[in-house]
Amino acid sequence: MALSKKPVNGMKDILPEEMQVRDYVQSVIKDTYRSFGFTPIETPCMENIANLSNKQGGENEKLIFKVMKRGEKLKVEEAKVEADLVDFGMRYDLTVPLVRFYSNNANDLPSPFKALQMGNVWRADRPQRGRYRQFMQCDIDIIGEPSNLAEIELILATTTTIGKLGFKNFEIRINERRLLKAMAAYSGFAEDQYDTVFIILDKMDKIGMDGVAGELLKEGYPQEAVDKYLGLFQGVEEAGGGLEGIKYLAKTLEGFLEADVEQNLLEIIDSVENAKTADFKLVFDPTLVRGMGYYTGTIFEIAMPELGAACGGGGRYDKMVGKFTGQDVPACGFSIGFERIVLLLLESGFTVPNQREKVAFLIEKGFSAAKLAEVIAKAQQERQAGKQVLVVRMNKNKKFQKEKLTTEGYGDIVEFFNN
Amino acid sequence: MALSKKPVNGMKDILPEEMQVRDYVQSVIKDTYRSFGFTPIETPCMENIANLSNKQGGENEKLIFKVMKRGEKLKVEEAKVEADLVDFGMRYDLTVPLVRFYSNNANDLPSPFKALQMGNVWRADRPQRGRYRQFMQCDIDIIGEPSNLAEIELILATTTTIGKLGFKNFEIRINERRLLKAMAAYSGFAEDQYDTVFIILDKMDKIGMDGVAGELLKEGYPQEAVDKYLGLFQGVEEAGGGLEGIKYLAKTLEGFLEADVEQNLLEIIDSVENAKTADFKLVFDPTLVRGMGYYTGTIFEIAMPELGAACGGGGRYDKMVGKFTGQDVPACGFSIGFERIVLLLLESGFTVPNQREKVAFLIEKGFSAAKLAEVIAKAQQERQAGKQVLVVRMNKNKKFQKEKLTTEGYGDIVEFFNN
Repeated sequence: MALSKKPVNGMKDILPEEMQVRDYVQSVIKDTYRSFGFTPIETPCMENIANLSNKQGGENEKLIFKVMKRGEKLKVEEAKVEADLVDFGMRYDLTVPLVRFYSNNANDLPSPFKALQMGNVWRADRPQRGRYRQFMQCDIDIIGEPSNLAEIELILATTTTIGKLGFKNFEIRINERRLLKAMAAYSGFAEDQYDTVFIILDKMDKIGMDGVAGELLKEGYPQEAVDKYLGLFQGVEEAGGGLEGIKYLAKTLEGFLEADVEQNLLEIIDSVENAKTADFKLVFDPTLVRGMGYYTGTIFEIAMPELGAACGGGGRYDKMVGKFTGQDVPACGFSIGFERIVLLLLESGFTVPNQREKVAFLIEKGFSAAKLAEVIAKAQQERQAGKQVLVVRMNKNKKFQKEKLTTEGYGDIVEFFNN
Repeated sequence: MALSKKPVNGMKDILPEEMQVRDYVQSVIKDTYRSFGFTPIETPCMENIANLSNKQGGENEKLIFKVMKRGEKLKVEEAKVEADLVDFGMRYDLTVPLVRFYSNNANDLPSPFKALQMGNVWRADRPQRGRYRQFMQCDIDIIGEPSNLAEIELILATTTTIGKLGFKNFEIRINERRLLKAMAAYSGFAEDQYDTVFIILDKMDKIGMDGVAGELLKEGYPQEAVDKYLGLFQGVEEAGGGLEGIKYLAKTLEGFLEADVEQNLLEIIDSVENAKTADFKLVFDPTLVRGMGYYTGTIFEIAMPELGAACGGGGRYDKMVGKFTGQDVPACGFSIGFERIVLLLLESGFTVPNQREKVAFLIEKGFSAAKLAEVIAKAQQERQAGKQVLVVRMNKNKKFQKEKLTTEGYGDIVEFFNN
């Protein structure tokens, strides 16, 4: 049977040129996050299917690659529904596995626990240009820190990393789930309407204030509630946005908003602005929603001027550990859009800094074993001295071979002849 | 529904302590292999199921984690056999994916192509202590180099890496598939008996010469063939083994053995011995078999004195690219036993060299935002100066907290109070 040369539908092979950039980005990320005290961990790429289908993952739960039972447990002919055939699933993010990991190993971990994860995740999305069904995620999380020290450190670590990768003028947008909810409650929406309201609000940057109003009315919500709701966003703008916008909301929403939300946001913005090392703005954005259902407090997102879309994000999810252990533990995380960053670097013609000097040794064919050993020993010396040495046979078309090696970055080409 | 805290059956969570060693081993491997001109590549963790079930993978093909079809293509009620439900499978090694990758991308790759792959593979083995169903493999391969320059460079790169990780007194055992076949043919075995004969020969180190003789006779092979076969191994020993053993076999097997096999092995051993930088022996072992069906020439294996089992291996597989492209391309690879090396290092109490200096900042609770910002700014400075700085809230039981931080390697603990 003929074998297929293509990768499976929707996934991709990564060639040396891209791989070099990926390795570099990974090493900068790891190194910077380590300097903040985050420790790398790893979980299996598969999880029990029940853990992945617990309604925490939102839309992603519809995109799970499912792994079939094996051996005696697999009964194909008797199976009525999918669930009869499946025991594991490929993880669709790194948050569900992290929380399981923490629940399983909390006794052996420092508290608070600062985790760094870099790993592939899988989503059976419809394949489309530039979006793949296997992709790298890169998360930092702090579990066990109730105060906004978690948010501050996560934002500083992430922005320092992005800054080290050469990005400038980016924005971190910040909001609070509790603020979102208070705004909806104040305007007169019922709690079971929040999700729909937020999905529409999330489109603000695409369809604008009028578009959001139109969609809310089309859902059948009363004109009065919609006006009151949009009036709040207007009010934030009129107050001048930023810290003043937060203060305006806190005052207006009195009785609907928990007392600590205002101070929480103001402290985060203040501390980050004072201690940041990268070139970015931390911006309060009352329209920021973030899709995942598990967020309970602060939420944030990276906006790059070079990109239409977000380039990472995160937030606080204080109720998720409790799903595994029965006891809530505060948690907060930030995920960098690894694939998008790699794409931006590749498109900008980025070259990886501090590479080894590259030397190619070309050996004429028919070398004796003794002479070959000599050349290879010489290569070994150069390698130990820090160089990258490629030893290859000389081709018939040596000119072409040397040209190709030069394109591959071999600046020095040494030829060895039989005599 | 209660969620399960354990990883899926047979796979494991990797905690910070082990992760640190893994990261270190990975970086040494990557760095050393790069100095030999190997370039990292990556393929998806899934392959089309037909590519994984083409009889190249031997026993591993029985251990595939299979991925279920999705959406309209999945028809559970109509399914009669497993194959109706499955389209992808998790890779069980990195060789099949590499060959597919090469077939798909050969035009964009240097020739010869020196690939480095580090990635997880999955095998649905029966779970047992110390053996997991997801594990890291670490392969280097040279595709497009017909001469033994490939073998020499692979053995030198691998042994240099293992040496840099601190291992000494290990052995590389080497043999040739064509020599194995010639020995069987010379002794009078038929070609369709070779596989069984080699499976029995493979047990030589466990059951000895008499054990092998017994099992061969039990299979019903004639006494004469068995005597002649074992006489060859005896002959190698009497010749003194090593280079003399190879010469003895080449002479004895005249008419059965391809003319270049002797010179091929002698050159490899000679060149490696002359150019090696690590402390190991390259040993000719006529009983070395290596399980995979795809090997066509030289085969080799790493034997560690600390381990009963092999710690990696590889060989030449000149016929595999042809299964994808219809045209054979010479290929040779060497796989390091990553998990075993990590295990040996962990058991030996190995500590990762050149770590950042670790400082912990303890902040009294109730800090104002302004004071918090000051402390964090100080942490940022120390991080930029190369230190690892952990910023945490002071616990009520400060003594215990400081003890724990010391155990975690924080040699310097700085306390910050409200006034």
